[in-house]
Amino acid sequence: MEEVIENKFIAIKSHINGAPIEFDFEVKTETISLSAKSKEVIVKNLYVSIDPYQLHRMKSCSSSQTTIYLAAPVQPGQSIDTYGVGRVVASGRPDFAKDDLVVGLLAWGEYTVVEEGRLLNKLDPMGLPLPYHVGPLGFSGLTAYAGFFEICKPKKGENVFVSAASGSVGSLVGQYAKLFGCHVVGCAGSQKKVDLLKEKLGFDDAFNYKDETDLNSALKRYFPNGIDIYFDNVGGEMLEAAVANMNKFGRVALCGVISEYTGGGKRPALEMLDVVYKRITIQGFLAADHTKNYGDFISTITDHLRTGKMQALCDISHGLESIPSAFVGLFRGDNIGKKIVQIAHE
Amino acid sequence: MEEVIENKFIAIKSHINGAPIEFDFEVKTETISLSAKSKEVIVKNLYVSIDPYQLHRMKSCSSSQTTIYLAAPVQPGQSIDTYGVGRVVASGRPDFAKDDLVVGLLAWGEYTVVEEGRLLNKLDPMGLPLPYHVGPLGFSGLTAYAGFFEICKPKKGENVFVSAASGSVGSLVGQYAKLFGCHVVGCAGSQKKVDLLKEKLGFDDAFNYKDETDLNSALKRYFPNGIDIYFDNVGGEMLEAAVANMNKFGRVALCGVISEYTGGGKRPALEMLDVVYKRITIQGFLAADHTKNYGDFISTITDHLRTGKMQALCDISHGLESIPSAFVGLFRGDNIGKKIVQIAHE
Repeated sequence: MEEVIENKFIAIKSHINGAPIEFDFEVKTETISLSAKSKEVIVKNLYVSIDPYQLHRMKSCSSSQTTIYLAAPVQPGQSIDTYGVGRVVASGRPDFAKDDLVVGLLAWGEYTVVEEGRLLNKLDPMGLPLPYHVGPLGFSGLTAYAGFFEICKPKKGENVFVSAASGSVGSLVGQYAKLFGCHVVGCAGSQKKVDLLKEKLGFDDAFNYKDETDLNSALKRYFPNGIDIYFDNVGGEMLEAAVANMNKFGRVALCGVISEYTGGGKRPALEMLDVVYKRITIQGFLAADHTKNYGDFISTITDHLRTGKMQALCDISHGLESIPSAFVGLFRGDNIGKKIVQIAHE
Repeated sequence: MEEVIENKFIAIKSHINGAPIEFDFEVKTETISLSAKSKEVIVKNLYVSIDPYQLHRMKSCSSSQTTIYLAAPVQPGQSIDTYGVGRVVASGRPDFAKDDLVVGLLAWGEYTVVEEGRLLNKLDPMGLPLPYHVGPLGFSGLTAYAGFFEICKPKKGENVFVSAASGSVGSLVGQYAKLFGCHVVGCAGSQKKVDLLKEKLGFDDAFNYKDETDLNSALKRYFPNGIDIYFDNVGGEMLEAAVANMNKFGRVALCGVISEYTGGGKRPALEMLDVVYKRITIQGFLAADHTKNYGDFISTITDHLRTGKMQALCDISHGLESIPSAFVGLFRGDNIGKKIVQIAHE
């Protein structure tokens, strides 16, 4: 007899075109079969990733705009896919068995019915906590690794500036930069985060951008010898100020623009003469284009985490119902490190 | 007996902080000796280059701003150096003799006293007109060559957009792109220039940006399949519109920002989310960083000019006194191709 269960999941009520609020979301329920069809894998979700870029997928964009993006638009009432770790409940594929730990594209829900073609891999935790496989060993981790080494092309001794430095990506970039032999300054939005950057993550210096009335002067103060690399997570005025303080042949890696996701941010009005005369390169990138670096990335970060050379910051909320507030909090800077929701006990 | 002569040259009366007018300049006179001291070469200037970037050197910038630039600031009352072709009048160096044709850093004047260390090379015209050695075979030429091949990294069949396409650099970039097998559309500021791009230089299409009320729509119309490469000479709103119309992994090469030189232009407010999601690279560059490509560049363009595969556009005014109006005209778009002033008969 086919066993069916109720699966609760989070959906948007309608498209979101500004800063999100909890009311934009609802818990929905569907009935799913726990007997996997051929080529299907049914996964009980354990830890799921909460990422700012997902807001972009929730906008009412025209189809012409969305085709350039990797991730499909999120539709009201529908399940929202996300990176996560889970455990196989039933498998219609020979390569997965009941109770296997898996990592891949799951859902903001209790269960995911993973159809063929959707990203799913068996997970060997390698002695590291499961949430690490959502954060520092997941897409945020690859973003930091590929962004810093492939896009920023660092040289030892260079001056590196990281914005949103206590976030999932920035916290890793700063640590990679320090280990590589760069001078690293980060900025964040609270004294607590600033202390953490300096005391726990080993940044050479850090500041609270909310305390600064003039970002240009602030960067001049923190970088008397100029900035060689800017790892930008925020865009807007911070990007303008960083370009103004860059050295010749400086590089800007852009991996997200949190100031623009909510539509409330000011676009940066860059001094393009600076870009020309200082021969600056500004490059947008996505981790998905750097899967060729995946092997190097995993072996490097696993080693650093095990030996304690790097710290993983995971900010975990509990329960499916906490997803909307966890997500909304990203845009207020509530999280420290990678935001993850634990859906079920391991 | 030492022969001395009067040397007339052009100087600025004071620093220029906006669009230049002819009144900003004056003709000055100095007495120079025609007996070259040891290691000096005295050159009679024949053709000198007139370039928009020189305005930037005429601003009253702070020293901290100017140190990042390659060219020293221009001081009121002083001689203004520029790329040019001349003939040796007297030489205190064994490697130059009277009547040698030379190319290098000369002056907006009748004569240049070239001291040791200043760029000067013997010129073999290789059967090409002397003005070609100031323009397409000079720094504008290297800017176009290195910018297109090294910065834009073209692939056959890609869609290339060139702004200021009838200018010294743009006219060459468009021709390189066509010869390379790209689809090329240029924009310029008059119907006459547009006709020239299509009829003489072989651009696939061209438009007058002054006729367009919405640059974004114009680019959508001219690039229904999107832009892969944008060679930007102007910055401002054109750069915004180009980024909005770029394809994934698009590249923007920035070699000058004529809208910003005069301080009157609007800085581009770029949609950085586009830059991230489309993984766009925006790169400033200067020809001076690409001297390693000089040999390739010279052999390529010499061949193309001789065989008629490329056209050189030289826009020549005559007489030292015409320099201020030639220079001022650059910012009104008066020139077609490389602006050069002939100072003396060959």
